[in-house]
Parts: sequence; structure tokens; C-alpha cells
Amino acid sequence: MLTEFTIQTDGPALYEVTGTVAQWLHGQDDGVVTLMVRHTSASLLIQENADPDVQRDLRAFFERLVPDADDPQMRFLRHRSEGPDDMPAHIKAAMMPVSLSIPVASGKMHLGMWQGIYLVEHRRAPHTRRIAAAFLSCSA
Amino acid sequence: MLTEFTIQTDGPALYEVTGTVAQWLHGQDDGVVTLMVRHTSASLLIQENADPDVQRDLRAFFERLVPDADDPQMRFLRHRSEGPDDMPAHIKAAMMPVSLSIPVASGKMHLGMWQGIYLVEHRRAPHTRRIAAAFLSCSA
Amino acid sequence: MLTEFTIQTDGPALYEVTGTVAQWLHGQDDGVVTLMVRHTSASLLIQENADPDVQRDLRAFFERLVPDADDPQMRFLRHRSEGPDDMPAHIKAAMMPVSLSIPVASGKMHLGMWQGIYLVEHRRAPHTRRIAAAFLSCSA
Repeated sequence: MLTEFTIQTDGPALYEVTGTVAQWLHGQDDGVVTLMVRHTSASLLIQENADPDVQRDLRAFFERLVPDADDPQMRFLRHRSEGPDDMPAHIKAAMMPVSLSIPVASGKMHLGMWQGIYLVEHRRAPHTRRIAAAFLSCSA
Repeated sequence: MLTEFTIQTDGPALYEVTGTVAQWLHGQDDGVVTLMVRHTSASLLIQENADPDVQRDLRAFFERLVPDADDPQMRFLRHRSEGPDDMPAHIKAAMMPVSLSIPVASGKMHLGMWQGIYLVEHRRAPHTRRIAAAFLSCSA
Repeated sequence: MLTEFTIQTDGPALYEVTGTVAQWLHGQDDGVVTLMVRHTSASLLIQENADPDVQRDLRAFFERLVPDADDPQMRFLRHRSEGPDDMPAHIKAAMMPVSLSIPVASGKMHLGMWQGIYLVEHRRAPHTRRIAAAFLSCSA
């Protein structure tokens, strides 16, 4: 079965979607769920869901590694028409996954205890983000 | 169903394969297509298909982040037998995806409007690159 | 079909699991195998299985790019309760894949000649790592 999830974002952050996906899978059998973000300036991560500092540190690291285009070390960038956070967003979207596949047992994603699924927004302005999802059953 | 796509590359660049994959899926139903590059010095990216500067900037960023082995900051590399662009290619292949899974609705990949699928060549010399592909149907 | 693989790790390194996965798939038909590491401080990589210097250089690069939290350039990190190698492990787990999908032909993964599948341990202390696996058949 297929669906699409919609997430409203409001600036660079990790937006958890674990519950939304889990609810959609409820009642299914064994199989694999595939998620793919339908944008080139956002990512999908499986990350720690316990200490919020992990998400803060993750973003801090990637903002240092891929600073905005108005930073002197990013002078070489040409794609600047959509603002200083545009090309760095595409770069981050190349470094972090845009698609994830997760084994499902009896309708439950087989995630580790500390794993959550997140949409990672790389742009500053609010965006409506869409995630395409598919569940394939082992026993089909 | 399974297949293999072959792409001739001619130096570091993004080579679009969206049309090739779309054509292969034509006439299928709902499901998921999985692509995997069968090499350890190339990657698969879903990226913007509009402004060619995005691809140019992406490559420029990764060439700065992972310079060739003859760059002073890469002096620590040991694997040098196949040339200065060899080990950096393996590193880039660890940072960018080698496999992608994409939901398919009625034989059409559910990509966003600006998303294209690219083989990313990390080596300088021309190469014949192979992508393994599988389509799994939801309704099977 | 579903399973879980368990790998004992003993410090940062690449631990090959190709043979374990291949053995589990033996006798199956065409399809896709999906692997997902059930942790947020380890990754899954498809990488070169020939020269051990490739693995050594990969780790050396990522240790320079994401040094431990006691390195001066990582002073901005806040999540430090589990030791200086904890938050850098989460960052590496965001840069390298946590899930892989690999086409399978007649029960054999369609990997390239030089490709091996590795669990990448990012933490210093020994850990028991679990990989969730699912095989979906094309002909189901």
C-alpha cells in the first residue's frame, strides 16, 4: 500500500514522524516500509529520540561543515538565487539520506529502542514537506 | 522484476538516469523500485534537476571536503596504488548513498517535481558503471 | 522473511557481514534484501573488500572530519554524558547509511565484485549490535 505524509516545517530542525508512520502500519503483517522525502533540500534520518541535545548538536555540526553561502569559506558557490541557505540545503541533502527502508514485524517497525524517524528541514523559511511511503508485505 | 542499467562515465559528474529507470517501470503497478550502484567509487543521488549550477556546486563542495590524495591535508591516506583520486572516491562513496528505494504509483516513481536520479562518478578516468535494479509490486 | 543478525564489536572498525547475509539468502529466488542497523551510533556501508587500507583510510578520514568531543574544534557539542566518542558517533551515523537495500537474483545479492557489506562501529567500548533484515521476493 502507498501513502504520502505531509509535514509543516518552520526552520531548520528535526521533525519526528515515527508515530505517524507507526500508526499507518498498524494492523499490517511482516514486510518493509520505504520512506522517501519528495524534496532536494530536506533529508530523512533515523536518530536518537532521547536527549534533545543530540538533535541540537547534529544541526550545529552540519551548520559548521556546510555554512550558509554568505560565509567567506562558501564563496565558491554559484547557485544563490534562492538565498544563502539554498545551496547548503542541497549539499546537506546529498550527505544525509533521502530514502529509508525499515523492516516491519507484525505491523511494527523493527527499530531499536532509541531510534526515531525524523524529517530534517535544511531551509530557514517554513515549508510544506511531503514524504512518499510504501509498505510491501513479505507474505503477499 | 530485476535488471541492470549500464552508464558510461567520463570524469567526475552527475549522470542522470531518471528517464532510463522511468521507462523500465512503464506499465507496472504500485510498488517500490530499488537501485544499487555495483561499485565502491560511485554513488546514487536524488538531486535537483533544474539549475545545472546545483550539480556544479555539489561537486565543488565535495572536492573541497575530500580533496585528492596529493593535497597536503590528505597526507594521512595509505591506499594510493590506483591514483590520487582513488581513496577520495571511496570516501565520497561512504558519504553519499549507494542504494535508493523509491515508491512507485501505477508504474510512475513518486518523485518530487524537482527531483532527478543521478549516478555520481567520483573517478577521473572513464568508467562503465552498472546499477542493479529491482521492482517489487505491492499487489503481488 | 525477517531475521536479525547480531555482531559483537570491539572498538571503531568495519565488521564484514556479507557472508552472514549471503548464507541467510541462500536458496531464495529474486527480490530485495533490506538491512537496517538498530542503533544510532553505528552505520552500514557497502565498501571495498580488497585492500584493508581502504577501511583504515575511511576511518582516519571520518575521525579527522568528526573528532572526539575533547578536541578543541568540537567545543560546541553539548551531548557529552556518555563520553567524548558518543556525540561524534551520532554525527557519523547521520553521514553514513543506517539502511541498505540490495537486489537479489536467485538468492544471490547482486553486489559488484569488490563490494562487501560492513557494520561500521563508531563507539570505542565493545557493543552488541543488531541488524534487522527482511527479504522480499519479486515473485511472491
